[in-house]
Amino acid sequence: MAIEQHRDWLVSLRRDLHRRPEPAWREFYTTARIVEELRDLPVDEILIGREMLDSDQRLGVPDDAELDTWFEQAHEYDVDEEVLDQLRGGHTGAMAVLNRGDGPTIGLRVDIDGLPQEESSASDHHPASEGFRSTHDDHMHACGHDGHTAIGLGVIQAIADSDFQGTLKVFFQPAEEIVGGGKAVAEGGHLDDLDAFLAIHLGLDHPTGEIVAGVDGFLAVSHFDAEFTGEPGHAGGHPEQGRNAVQAMATAVQNLYAIPRHNDGATRVNAGKVGGGTASNIIPEAAFIEGEVRGETTELMEYTHEKAINVIESAAEMHECEVSITGGGEAPSARSDEAAVEQVAQAAERTAGVRSIVRRDDLGGSEDATYLMQRVQDHGGVAGFVGIGTDHPGGHHTSTFDVDEDSISIGVEVLTDAIQRLATETQAAD
Amino acid sequence: MAIEQHRDWLVSLRRDLHRRPEPAWREFYTTARIVEELRDLPVDEILIGREMLDSDQRLGVPDDAELDTWFEQAHEYDVDEEVLDQLRGGHTGAMAVLNRGDGPTIGLRVDIDGLPQEESSASDHHPASEGFRSTHDDHMHACGHDGHTAIGLGVIQAIADSDFQGTLKVFFQPAEEIVGGGKAVAEGGHLDDLDAFLAIHLGLDHPTGEIVAGVDGFLAVSHFDAEFTGEPGHAGGHPEQGRNAVQAMATAVQNLYAIPRHNDGATRVNAGKVGGGTASNIIPEAAFIEGEVRGETTELMEYTHEKAINVIESAAEMHECEVSITGGGEAPSARSDEAAVEQVAQAAERTAGVRSIVRRDDLGGSEDATYLMQRVQDHGGVAGFVGIGTDHPGGHHTSTFDVDEDSISIGVEVLTDAIQRLATETQAAD
Amino acid sequence: MAIEQHRDWLVSLRRDLHRRPEPAWREFYTTARIVEELRDLPVDEILIGREMLDSDQRLGVPDDAELDTWFEQAHEYDVDEEVLDQLRGGHTGAMAVLNRGDGPTIGLRVDIDGLPQEESSASDHHPASEGFRSTHDDHMHACGHDGHTAIGLGVIQAIADSDFQGTLKVFFQPAEEIVGGGKAVAEGGHLDDLDAFLAIHLGLDHPTGEIVAGVDGFLAVSHFDAEFTGEPGHAGGHPEQGRNAVQAMATAVQNLYAIPRHNDGATRVNAGKVGGGTASNIIPEAAFIEGEVRGETTELMEYTHEKAINVIESAAEMHECEVSITGGGEAPSARSDEAAVEQVAQAAERTAGVRSIVRRDDLGGSEDATYLMQRVQDHGGVAGFVGIGTDHPGGHHTSTFDVDEDSISIGVEVLTDAIQRLATETQAAD
Amino acid sequence: MAIEQHRDWLVSLRRDLHRRPEPAWREFYTTARIVEELRDLPVDEILIGREMLDSDQRLGVPDDAELDTWFEQAHEYDVDEEVLDQLRGGHTGAMAVLNRGDGPTIGLRVDIDGLPQEESSASDHHPASEGFRSTHDDHMHACGHDGHTAIGLGVIQAIADSDFQGTLKVFFQPAEEIVGGGKAVAEGGHLDDLDAFLAIHLGLDHPTGEIVAGVDGFLAVSHFDAEFTGEPGHAGGHPEQGRNAVQAMATAVQNLYAIPRHNDGATRVNAGKVGGGTASNIIPEAAFIEGEVRGETTELMEYTHEKAINVIESAAEMHECEVSITGGGEAPSARSDEAAVEQVAQAAERTAGVRSIVRRDDLGGSEDATYLMQRVQDHGGVAGFVGIGTDHPGGHHTSTFDVDEDSISIGVEVLTDAIQRLATETQAAD
Repeated sequence: MAIEQHRDWLVSLRRDLHRRPEPAWREFYTTARIVEELRDLPVDEILIGREMLDSDQRLGVPDDAELDTWFEQAHEYDVDEEVLDQLRGGHTGAMAVLNRGDGPTIGLRVDIDGLPQEESSASDHHPASEGFRSTHDDHMHACGHDGHTAIGLGVIQAIADSDFQGTLKVFFQPAEEIVGGGKAVAEGGHLDDLDAFLAIHLGLDHPTGEIVAGVDGFLAVSHFDAEFTGEPGHAGGHPEQGRNAVQAMATAVQNLYAIPRHNDGATRVNAGKVGGGTASNIIPEAAFIEGEVRGETTELMEYTHEKAINVIESAAEMHECEVSITGGGEAPSARSDEAAVEQVAQAAERTAGVRSIVRRDDLGGSEDATYLMQRVQDHGGVAGFVGIGTDHPGGHHTSTFDVDEDSISIGVEVLTDAIQRLATETQAAD
Repeated sequence: MAIEQHRDWLVSLRRDLHRRPEPAWREFYTTARIVEELRDLPVDEILIGREMLDSDQRLGVPDDAELDTWFEQAHEYDVDEEVLDQLRGGHTGAMAVLNRGDGPTIGLRVDIDGLPQEESSASDHHPASEGFRSTHDDHMHACGHDGHTAIGLGVIQAIADSDFQGTLKVFFQPAEEIVGGGKAVAEGGHLDDLDAFLAIHLGLDHPTGEIVAGVDGFLAVSHFDAEFTGEPGHAGGHPEQGRNAVQAMATAVQNLYAIPRHNDGATRVNAGKVGGGTASNIIPEAAFIEGEVRGETTELMEYTHEKAINVIESAAEMHECEVSITGGGEAPSARSDEAAVEQVAQAAERTAGVRSIVRRDDLGGSEDATYLMQRVQDHGGVAGFVGIGTDHPGGHHTSTFDVDEDSISIGVEVLTDAIQRLATETQAAD
Repeated sequence: MAIEQHRDWLVSLRRDLHRRPEPAWREFYTTARIVEELRDLPVDEILIGREMLDSDQRLGVPDDAELDTWFEQAHEYDVDEEVLDQLRGGHTGAMAVLNRGDGPTIGLRVDIDGLPQEESSASDHHPASEGFRSTHDDHMHACGHDGHTAIGLGVIQAIADSDFQGTLKVFFQPAEEIVGGGKAVAEGGHLDDLDAFLAIHLGLDHPTGEIVAGVDGFLAVSHFDAEFTGEPGHAGGHPEQGRNAVQAMATAVQNLYAIPRHNDGATRVNAGKVGGGTASNIIPEAAFIEGEVRGETTELMEYTHEKAINVIESAAEMHECEVSITGGGEAPSARSDEAAVEQVAQAAERTAGVRSIVRRDDLGGSEDATYLMQRVQDHGGVAGFVGIGTDHPGGHHTSTFDVDEDSISIGVEVLTDAIQRLATETQAAD
Repeated sequence: MAIEQHRDWLVSLRRDLHRRPEPAWREFYTTARIVEELRDLPVDEILIGREMLDSDQRLGVPDDAELDTWFEQAHEYDVDEEVLDQLRGGHTGAMAVLNRGDGPTIGLRVDIDGLPQEESSASDHHPASEGFRSTHDDHMHACGHDGHTAIGLGVIQAIADSDFQGTLKVFFQPAEEIVGGGKAVAEGGHLDDLDAFLAIHLGLDHPTGEIVAGVDGFLAVSHFDAEFTGEPGHAGGHPEQGRNAVQAMATAVQNLYAIPRHNDGATRVNAGKVGGGTASNIIPEAAFIEGEVRGETTELMEYTHEKAINVIESAAEMHECEVSITGGGEAPSARSDEAAVEQVAQAAERTAGVRSIVRRDDLGGSEDATYLMQRVQDHGGVAGFVGIGTDHPGGHHTSTFDVDEDSISIGVEVLTDAIQRLATETQAAD
């Protein structure tokens, strides 16, 4: 494919996905669209949903009503119904295999889900002015996974066009935003034969033209859902009869953020979504917190998690409520191998649009690609996480986030070269 | 109408309304159903929505999307479309006028709205076992307004069948639960010529067979909506960049309940409905509190209101958020006139099912019937609020609240007699 | 004694006591000074400390170090050392018996302790401008007990000068401010033979010249001391190693004030004195709350008390601290007998300086005179609590509180007449 | 001096200081004792208090009453009254100058103050079993400054006994625990001619026999005192009249600990000492927080400080209180120069008792030696901070902290050698 044509295809694809962001485990249209693209590519094998991941290991799957709403919406789009039906129940995600003769097996993972964040409609917000702003209320691609998906597809085409020898597996992973999909993909069994593996992320405060050859400093993370149950009552007539679940929740929130910091490294807490009560004149019977804790290491995450559970349980007790706490998504920490960093750096040096290379940088966030990296490393493979700079006007997870579309082609080029180098290197090492 | 038949009609009507509870300003089906019943009664005039109340004085009207959802639901029921169309936009409520020759004008007010409370499906919950449990998710008649509506209609029939001389006006008021409708009805102009006026409530911890001739002790009340706005951010990567609206909200909740009590009398605060944030890994950008304050007097309510506003504004400032506070429903305090209490007590003494009469009792809650009572009293009329005992298994505003249907007929009988007595009394007084 | 001379004596006495306020169970100088005055009066018996109350029933006695500090200070004043030695260990208080032939036994109780409140030194604060401001740092008579004591002594003199027939017992009770002395006096055994009993209070927002014949509405009260124990740690180096007792305390304070109000009547909570920690760079190992709960009835007080205990224990648990909660002073509710109210009202009508009489009024505070009232009532006697109006510039318990000294003589006169009337009445009733 | 004798002298001196710990700016006995020892040493100049530091730059000096209490206590010990009188008013600290011919000027700083922490009396706590437990109630040397002082004196003796050429200045700095003395010493003018400078600390979780040649990772720190002022009131009678300073303080404490973490590095907050109110039945009029914030960089400290001020001010506003916030001690961050690290490491290698050498390690706490290090570095000198391992059973700032006395001699030896090496090095460099 000609470079210009290739670029147009990826930009148009990215914009289509941008228009229809779907959150974790609800990537029905997205997956179907990916499969459609894969069918047009010289791919040897396409695996869908259950075929590529261990469905029992999915974390944070929403309830059926929620899944159905998004499933039905996807049905209204012009996509292959048969593919859609395979995804029913939140079995999203896909994977492509490209066989190019004898040689090492290299993996690439891109994530595909959007976020529950309303998109800006300001005239200086590019997706708004160019007409590809999200059409899904209160949801948007605010973290660039639309671009990741485009890069994944672009790399397949470029590798197919190259003289790469070996096997390439590209994983289109669902549910990264809730760190819910990584474990399931890692346990899916398709990573165990990889000689080398790369995962990617756009942006991360690096400008277009900058490549981070090795992203490290992943925070281990654990999500939790706490449901408080008290007793309702008439707020005017019998304030003494209720057991106020919102008071319990508010006490928990205040004390969650006040969990002591730790000398061994960074920790994080967030009560990211909360709610409770039904009407201003009823003492709130129910309330909830959807939150998360993180740590620079898995131990630090667990330290914070333990404190969080105690805070929540004590807050419930204080207001004579019950509380049920269930776990959500989770991810460990991980570190890019030097061998991967080296090949990416060399590839970046050769790439036209790259103006600066950062050898290693800390993410300071979480990513469940760490599950995949660990899996590959545990099986003797080499793993790395690559940052692809992109000028983004707003921060990640905010309404004005956007991707500089020039960075998509840069990403494709760097990764295509790095994958070939890794194949050559690991071949030589045998 | 024969007593037995009358009773069956009211019970069946009440159960129909119970099945389809509609919250404040969304009583579309309810109003249409009332109008339908009125058309079968020997009524001289029927006023609907805007005709009976001052629409500009409605408090706490929900947004259009919310109104539409309920409006469309009502459309799916078998009701007069023309009536429905008059109600569009939350102009609910109705009023009936019965002219029976020369004589005083007497008013009766019943309220018609339900609550956002899920109904029990336990086998010992009568509406569940008898098959008339709410079919509207998360909503129920948890305060007996279905029974009030039935009583209002029953009284019209009974007065029509009596030798009452004068005019009877029955007000089917919307939005009492959010104290949002009383002011609009009071300002509607149809109360100013009343010589006497009664409002009613079932239950209030009084058993079937007990009548409270004069309910007093209404708490003045004021609702408020606080919307906190901060800034989102990546909870893992940049905890320092957000401005956390949920922290502001939680701090406000904790301190709202801690507003100092007052020596002059009872005060109340409730953060009845709260929420905030979008996902566990995003620092919450927005949060809200729908709350209320009450006081034994209007001054005590205002004392608490002022403190509440200060708490909310300071909590926002503490977490560098903005907050916008808007008012919702409101109601003053009021007191039943002795003349009304006396006639109701005498009527109760004559009524077969009445086993005990409480002359006066304190409500300890709020009611926007107080607007109507004040309006009548200000124009020289006599006003009273009548409690009609009913055995209710669960408390008001809880999932197991129910009405003993025997109390409906008792209520009709007591009120019918009381209205005739008030007519005779006020006539004599002229 | 001539009226003018009598007045001068009481004012000068009151000012002397005002200069040397002593808090609960530390009224060493105060008691010794009272005994000195009693020895100059025609009194038949003087009982001191242990002789007049049941020492084992004292509530809220401070620790030895604290008692010693005040004891030693009293030693530096010019008082009878022998009397002082009887008081050592916090066995304060005194009682006088006046036998005037056959007749009923009438009791009068005045309280004698000061408060830990710094006194105003403003030039418009009468004690400051007249030179009798408190000389005890951070302590003052901010509730008029100096005036009460003067009234008690004045009544003895006046009754001795009258033709009263019977026995008068005047109780100078310690530790009212912490509701710590009432129970011990009630259990002391000297109330059981009383035919009638009066207790008094100056002020209570009533002006000079106004008498409240029966004060009611005493809030039941219970004090508590909570001691939180965590673990210290280096706040900079190891924030994760401590268990922060100040966080536990602050969480408790916030939630104590937020205990739900009760529909049955007034409740109160106060975290009146708190503290914790040792230095800004050490994680606080210890913290405390000295607080109280009150209720319009004993049940309401107990409702609030139970909630408070749960809040405190849960707050400790939330921050992994231990907590030990001990009880302090306590008092029940009580009501003045109509017979006492009647005699006081009649006496007030006859008193020159009285310009207005309130038959009954609610205190809205607490008083452990209720223990004495209950004791007398339980033994068949008549009990009443009398309010003696006094213009007070600042509120009770604030730095600018002061007593209009004219009200002292009015109090003496009303009580002297009321005691004689009660003697006559109860005599007649036998 | 023979090694054995030298050791006994230092241990006995350290134990004497351990018995009489004095907190910041109250090191009256300690300073006098140091001066006494210096007079027995071959020292050329002794500077006391004001002579060695800029008194106007002292931070966190306590009030006069507090200073007097400790000053009078010191007077009761057997020390030179004339020296003591120089220290009156909190002008503590001393400095020794040793001139040994031409050569570079080298500085050593040791800190001398104790902590407000009660010392353990457990039988396995060495100072308790050996009879040198603190005799000052609620205070102890819980951070090893008694050992630091001994080392400082030991080094003077050892350098005097060596063939060192140049000038040695040893600074016995007060008020390190409140980071209150460093700035004053730095501004005292005696550091500006130093060619090299070392500061030291015992312990820091390193065992006896381990030397940290360069301690880094000092957290910048800033102390603050917040005084809340509300209005008192009778907690039972008029809960609405007070403005509750303890509620303001508790709200501030909860939200201080909940200040968002920062992605750029570690931050700390501690509300280390708090208090408020006077009695359980008075609404608290006053309350305070003595706290601190820290950051891995000065910017991070300032970020946290700004948030803390906003939290405190908003909490005051929320409860209608005033608040006055004053600054206390402060210290910047700093980093050991490689040249200093190198010489210390070489010295450690030659020292008999040293079993392991850590070249650089992070403190994770704060130290106002950073002021001195910065001053020296700004004037072209070389600065380093040396960790001297010591087995300590309890953590720093806890009741069971103790120093392994063997580490004192090790420290003396390493430092003496390092000082000589630094002299030679800097001489050579000229």
